[in-house]
Order: sequence, then structure tokens, then C-alpha cells
Amino acid sequence: MKLTYFNLRARAEPARLILAQAGQDYEDARLPAPWDDMAPWQELKPNTPFGQLPVLNVNGVEIAQSMTVARYVAREFGLAGTNNLESALMDAIVDAVSEATEKMYNAYVFEKDEAKKAELTKKFNEDVLPSLLKNIEKGLKDDYLVGGTVSWADIILYHFVKELPSQDALKDAPKVAGVVERVANLPNIKKWVETRPQTKL
Amino acid sequence: MKLTYFNLRARAEPARLILAQAGQDYEDARLPAPWDDMAPWQELKPNTPFGQLPVLNVNGVEIAQSMTVARYVAREFGLAGTNNLESALMDAIVDAVSEATEKMYNAYVFEKDEAKKAELTKKFNEDVLPSLLKNIEKGLKDDYLVGGTVSWADIILYHFVKELPSQDALKDAPKVAGVVERVANLPNIKKWVETRPQTKL
Repeated sequence: MKLTYFNLRARAEPARLILAQAGQDYEDARLPAPWDDMAPWQELKPNTPFGQLPVLNVNGVEIAQSMTVARYVAREFGLAGTNNLESALMDAIVDAVSEATEKMYNAYVFEKDEAKKAELTKKFNEDVLPSLLKNIEKGLKDDYLVGGTVSWADIILYHFVKELPSQDALKDAPKVAGVVERVANLPNIKKWVETRPQTKL
Repeated sequence: MKLTYFNLRARAEPARLILAQAGQDYEDARLPAPWDDMAPWQELKPNTPFGQLPVLNVNGVEIAQSMTVARYVAREFGLAGTNNLESALMDAIVDAVSEATEKMYNAYVFEKDEAKKAELTKKFNEDVLPSLLKNIEKGLKDDYLVGGTVSWADIILYHFVKELPSQDALKDAPKVAGVVERVANLPNIKKWVETRPQTKL
């Protein structure tokens, strides 16, 4: 397997974390960040399935879309539940976290207009983030999100929380904070996070 | 199974179409459209997993998020591929179509500022839509998108295309147009589309 992305965590890190937890070897191919050198990406772009990265190449077949890649490796290595209902409960959390992740990036990274950025940042911190954490908190009955054991949903939640500009919102979501702490302390996750390339995003 | 949404196609129609194709009975529970009467939704909202609809209730367990619900019913009724790789190739197309769907709704339905609406509409018609169709077209080798038989990815693509304000872009994507035509002519799909509630969206 070859996972191609930029030299960033961002949209490829969920799959990298799942592969780390699963103890799988793969080629971690990294193009320069677009703001450092756009040329390699411009050359590769027409040959990707949807003109976007990450792409996972599995025996010559290319899988696109960050959450699809993450789900594929999670299923392949036993981190996506033991039946369709468990898988769906994980997918629902992953979708909710992904929606919030897009709003975080839009507010903190992509928006260039200062007034609009302030508005989006305020909405993220006062509405999007607390609502998401409250909704996950109310569904949490166990040490992990679904099925009583670690899954890719826990890893996605962990990654989202660790990428937040501030961890303050976790104070009102102690059970979510517990899940994040448990994932952070998994030996394979800990080792990957300590040794992975250091990047801005 | 009980599928709860507004009396709209929009985000619940993919799951309804999949359930129609699979020939499954379910309760198609419909709240008034938010612009007709917000009260029933305001009452239900705090009791949904993420404060959003649709929600699918399966034997008392609530599954949230439109594409998670669609994937769940597709897997349950044999429309989500025969192995993890096929499922992932479907997921990737579904994710790409979903991204374009969000942009279509943002441009045509949600944006209220006229100048911004014109900008988003132009971007959708001149960039987002033709790029998506071109990328799906280049990967299409068969009568259906993945695995040589109809899957939920074909149904999602069909629904997206039929909701477009114009079908003009299909002229440059004859293989995509063929998939859409084949899905439209499936007897179960045809029957559902002819008999479903008529709504604005």
C-alpha cells in the first residue's frame, strides 16, 4: 500500500493513525506542502481519481477521498466494527466529526477575509464545537465510542481534538476527554505521534 | 425501520431510493418542511443523535447522518459491493458526489446574498460540476460504476444528476448519462419516483 499526500497531517493523518494502530507497513509518500512547492502536485493532480489528495494505492487500484481511505484501512485491519450496525454508528460519528473538521479548517486556515474569519471562528467555538462534543458525550456509555473497544471512530475523534487550536472545550466533555486520553496512550499511537514528521498542519 | 426526515427529497432521498431498489418496507416519517412549520422539528431536535435529520431508527437504535444512513441500508440489502475494495471505490464516488451536492445546495438554496450566490453558481456550473462528471467519466469502464452491477453509488449519482437545475452538463459525459438512464429505468426506482410525494426539493 502506498498513501500519497502532502507533507502535512491534515487530511491524511486519520489513515496514518489507523495504519499505525493496526501495526501495518505502508509507503508514506509525501509531496511538498502546496505553499512550499506547487509543481509536484500540479503534475500529479490530473492522474488522481478526483483531482485531490490523499490517494491510497492498493495493488495498483487507487482509492480517493480522505474518509474513504480511512474507512478502507480501518475495515481491512479490524477497526471498523463487527457488524453493519456498529459500522454505521462509527460512520455517523466520523461524519459529524468531519463536518466540524471542515468548519475548523474553513475558519482557521482557509478564510482570508478578517471579518469573515472572526465570524467563522466565533461560530466554530461557540456553536459547532460545543454542540458536537455535547452530542458525542451524551451517547458515550463506555471507554470507547462504539462496541466497547477501540475503533477508527475513536482515532478520528482523537485526531480532531488534538488538532483543535485550544483544548478548553474538553472541560465540558469529560467522557470525550477520557476517550481521547485512552487513544493517546495506545502504544502504537503514542509511538507514531512521537516519531512522525513534524509539520505545521 | 423508521426513517425520519422532513417532507422533502434532499438529504433523505438517497436512502429512500436505495430502500426502494431493495424492495424494503419501512416507515417513511415526514416532518413539515422547516419553512412550513418549524415547531415539530424544534421539539424533536434535542432527541436526535447530532441535532440533524435524517435519522434511521433500527430496532430502537438511531443512526444519524444522511450518507451513513444510505450506506447502512445499502450494506444491509446487498447494494454496497462484495468486498472492502469495491465498497471503498463506491464510498469514494459517494464522497465526491456529496461534496458537489453540498456546493449545489449552498449555491442554489442556502446562499441569500445575490452577488455571492452568482459567484457560487458560476463556480458550481463552470468548475465543480464539469470536473466531477469528467472524473467519474474517466473511471467508468462498465454499465455501472463499480463491480459491473447496480450499487448505491449509482443511485447516489442518479439522484445528484436528477436534482441538478439543468441536465446540460451531461452532454459532455455520455457514460455518466448512461448510468443515470439505467438507474432511472430500474423498475423499483421508476415506481418509487412516479409515486413518491411531490416536494419542492
